[in-house]
Amino acid sequence: MKMQKALKEKIPVCRDRVKQMLREGGSLKISDISVRHLFSGIRGLDLLIGNVSYVDPYEGIHFRGHSVSDILQILPKPKGCKSPYAGGMYYLLMTGDIPTLQDALEVEDEWKTRAEIPTYVVNMLQAMPKNTHPMTMLSQAILALQADSKFDEGYNNGLQKLDYWQATLEDSLNLTAKTPALAAAIYNIKYRDRKLVSADPNLDWSANFGHMIGKGWDQHYQELCRLFFGLHADQGTGNVSVHTACLVNSTLSDVYYSCSAAMNGLAGPLHGRANQDCLIWLLGILKKFGSLPTKEQLKDYVWETLNRGKIIPGYGHAVLRNTDPRFTAQLKFGKAYMADSKLFKLVEMVYEVVPHVLTKHGKAKSPWPNVDAISGTLQYQSGLKEFDFYTVLFGVGRMLGITANLVWSRAIMLPLERPQSITLDMVEQKIAELKVKKAFVVSEA
Amino acid sequence: MKMQKALKEKIPVCRDRVKQMLREGGSLKISDISVRHLFSGIRGLDLLIGNVSYVDPYEGIHFRGHSVSDILQILPKPKGCKSPYAGGMYYLLMTGDIPTLQDALEVEDEWKTRAEIPTYVVNMLQAMPKNTHPMTMLSQAILALQADSKFDEGYNNGLQKLDYWQATLEDSLNLTAKTPALAAAIYNIKYRDRKLVSADPNLDWSANFGHMIGKGWDQHYQELCRLFFGLHADQGTGNVSVHTACLVNSTLSDVYYSCSAAMNGLAGPLHGRANQDCLIWLLGILKKFGSLPTKEQLKDYVWETLNRGKIIPGYGHAVLRNTDPRFTAQLKFGKAYMADSKLFKLVEMVYEVVPHVLTKHGKAKSPWPNVDAISGTLQYQSGLKEFDFYTVLFGVGRMLGITANLVWSRAIMLPLERPQSITLDMVEQKIAELKVKKAFVVSEA
Repeated sequence: MKMQKALKEKIPVCRDRVKQMLREGGSLKISDISVRHLFSGIRGLDLLIGNVSYVDPYEGIHFRGHSVSDILQILPKPKGCKSPYAGGMYYLLMTGDIPTLQDALEVEDEWKTRAEIPTYVVNMLQAMPKNTHPMTMLSQAILALQADSKFDEGYNNGLQKLDYWQATLEDSLNLTAKTPALAAAIYNIKYRDRKLVSADPNLDWSANFGHMIGKGWDQHYQELCRLFFGLHADQGTGNVSVHTACLVNSTLSDVYYSCSAAMNGLAGPLHGRANQDCLIWLLGILKKFGSLPTKEQLKDYVWETLNRGKIIPGYGHAVLRNTDPRFTAQLKFGKAYMADSKLFKLVEMVYEVVPHVLTKHGKAKSPWPNVDAISGTLQYQSGLKEFDFYTVLFGVGRMLGITANLVWSRAIMLPLERPQSITLDMVEQKIAELKVKKAFVVSEA
Repeated sequence: MKMQKALKEKIPVCRDRVKQMLREGGSLKISDISVRHLFSGIRGLDLLIGNVSYVDPYEGIHFRGHSVSDILQILPKPKGCKSPYAGGMYYLLMTGDIPTLQDALEVEDEWKTRAEIPTYVVNMLQAMPKNTHPMTMLSQAILALQADSKFDEGYNNGLQKLDYWQATLEDSLNLTAKTPALAAAIYNIKYRDRKLVSADPNLDWSANFGHMIGKGWDQHYQELCRLFFGLHADQGTGNVSVHTACLVNSTLSDVYYSCSAAMNGLAGPLHGRANQDCLIWLLGILKKFGSLPTKEQLKDYVWETLNRGKIIPGYGHAVLRNTDPRFTAQLKFGKAYMADSKLFKLVEMVYEVVPHVLTKHGKAKSPWPNVDAISGTLQYQSGLKEFDFYTVLFGVGRMLGITANLVWSRAIMLPLERPQSITLDMVEQKIAELKVKKAFVVSEA
C-alpha cells in the first residue's frame, strides 16, 4: 500500500537527519532541570521526541504541522459529509503527507481486510463479571490479541533492528483495524443484549463503530464518530497514554503490550476519564436548577464550586493556555446538530461564564476549556448515555496516534527510556550542596 | 497492622520534608538536558523520585539504603533458612524500617487472608488460546481483578486526596497477596494439567508459589523463590516496569491498571525477558561443544559472537558499572545447591572469561554481569524449564517494589507526569539557534 511505500522512503531520510542532529548539536544544552521538576511530574520539560503531533500551548494540537481547523478542511471526507475519514487521518499521522481521497480509502480498505476479531477474544470478554469497567475490558481485549504479534514473531526469528518498524506497522494496522469492533463488542456485552453486530463493508472505520453499537446508518452519529476519533487521535508523546505506550515499547514489547498499557493510563481520572466527570458536573447543574440556569445563577454556582476547593471539570489543561481547538470544533458540531438541547446550551453558557470567573479567581493556570468540556455532552445528546464508555471512545481515537508514534519510535530506533530516580535523602543532600556552591537558580515558568 | 501504622506516622513527616525541600531549594538547578538526551532515552538523568530503592552504578541496588548482602543478612528468615521472608522485604520497602520476625510474619499472615483468587479470573485465563504468552496472561489476570479496586471505589465516593495512599495500600496488599497464586495458576494452565493447587497455610508467600506449581515442600526451591523474588523486588523508579506503573498511576488509575501496564513493559526483551535470552545463549554453548567448553574455546566463542555484531546476554547494564550484587547472591546460591551442574559451571566460567574479553573489545560501557546472567540458570537447574515463564517470576518479585512505590507516590502526592515532546523539525531549529547563540555544551558522561 502507498502508506507503507511512503514510509519506506521517508524513514531513511529521517534516520540520517537524526544522525546529523546528534553530530552537529548532540551536546548542546536545551534546558535546565530544577529540584521542583522532580516533584512536578517533570511538567513542561522538553524531554521526548514526538514527530507525529505537537501541542502548542496557545494554538493547541498540530497533527503533522496542521491545526485542527486545517485538518477538518483538508482531509478527505465521504461525499456530502463534514468530518474526515479516519483512514486519511492515519495516513497523515503516519507519513506526514496530506492524503488524497484514494490514499484515505486505501487505508480504509486495508483495515477492512484485517478487521475480524477472533472468537476467543469475545469469549474472554463474555467471561468477565458484569461490573468490569469497559476500559479494563478494552485493555484485556488488546492483550488477548498479543499472541498474533508480527513483531514478537519476527523478534523471535532474528528480525533485523532496521526492520523493526515494518513489523510494528503490521501490528499497528492489525490492531487499529480491529479497534472499532473491539469497542463495539464491549459496548454490546456491557450495555445491550450481549449480541455482536457485524461490520458493514459499505461503511468507513469510524461509521462502522456507530453501526456496530446498534446505531445503524444514523448519519449524524457517523459524523460525530469521525470527528471524535480524529480529534482524539494524538497529543504529542508527553501525554500519559502515548508516553506509556512509547515507554513500554522502548523495551521492545510489541504494539499490543504497549497499547494495552496506554489504555490503562488513559483510564485515569486525570486523563481520559475526565470527559465523564465533566458531563456529570453539567448534568448536576441541570438537575439542581430543574432546567437551564440563568447566567447569574451559573456564575454563583461556579464560584460556590471553587470556594469549596473544587475544580471546574474540563477547564484548564496541563499544557494548553487557550481554548482547545478540539473544543471549538465540537462546539461547531453541536451548533449544527443539537443547538436546541438544554445540555448543549449549558455547555455554551459555561463557556461564556467560567473563563471570566476563573480569571478573577486567579488560581488556574488557564481559564479556558479543553476537549473534555464538551465531548461527553455530544455523545450523551446523541444517545450514548453510558458515561463509563466515553473513555473507550477516547481510546479508539487515540489508538491511531499511539500506533503511528510506535512505528516512528522503531523507525528512528529510539533506545530504552531509562531515566534515573533519586531518594528524598539524596534530594536534601543535593539542595544542601547546591546552596553551598551558590548554584544556578532556574526561573519559574 | 504495624506496617500501616508505621506508614501513618512516616507519611506526614515526608510530606513536610518535601514542602521544605521545595521551599528551600525548589528552583535550584540539578542538571542540564542536551539534545542527545532526547535521543538516548533520557538515560542517566535524575528526573524521578524513588524513595524505596536506589541503584548505585558501582554498588548496585540499595533497598531503603541497604545493600543486597546486608538485606540477606538482616531480614528475618524461616528457621534454618538462608533466604528471607518476602513479608519482611515488603515491610522494609514500605516503611524503610528493618522488620522484626514478628513484623515480617504479620505481613505474611495479612497476605494469607487476602490470597484467594476469584473463579472468574481462572475461567478467563482458561479461555485464552494455548499459545498465549504467560506474561500476557499475568497482565490480563491483574486487569481481571481491577473491578475490586478500593482506590477506584473510594475515588468514586469522594475519597480525600490526603487519603489516596491508604486505598492504594489496600489495593497493593490485595494484589500482592494474590500474585503467587495468579502466577501459579498461569503455570498450571500453560504447562501442567490445567488443575490448580491450593495454597498451603503453613508456607510463606514465596514458598507457597513453589508449592502451587507442584513442587510440594521442595526446600531448595523454596529457598530459591525467597531469594529470587526478594532480589527482583525493586530497582529505583527509572526502570521501565516501575516507571510505567508510576506514570499510569499518576493519572489516578489504580494499582491494578498500573501493575498490568508495568508487566507489559517487563515483558520486553530489553527488560524482564532478558534472563530467558541469557539461558538460551548458555544452553547453545553446551550444545555446540557437546559439553562444557574449555576456557580457551569459550573465549574464542565470545569473540566470535562479538565479531558478528552480537551482544553477550546478561553482561552490561543501563546503569550498573560493576558486577551486579544480585548476580553475586545467586552465584552463592548456585555454589551451595548446584555446584556440580555443567550449566552452573558454565555460568562461572563465563564470569571468568567475558569481562576480560569485553574490556579488550572496548565497546560495552560495562563488562560485568547483571542479574539476568544467572537467574534463568538457577530456575532451569531447579527443574523449571519453561523459559517463557521466567519473566513472570521476575514480575512476581517486582510487584513488591512497584506497589511500595505506588503507595509512596500517592503518599507524597506526586502529580501527573507530563513532560513535553518536540518534533524533529523543532530539534533542528533549536540546534541552529543554539549554535548562533554559542550555547553551553553539556559534557558527555
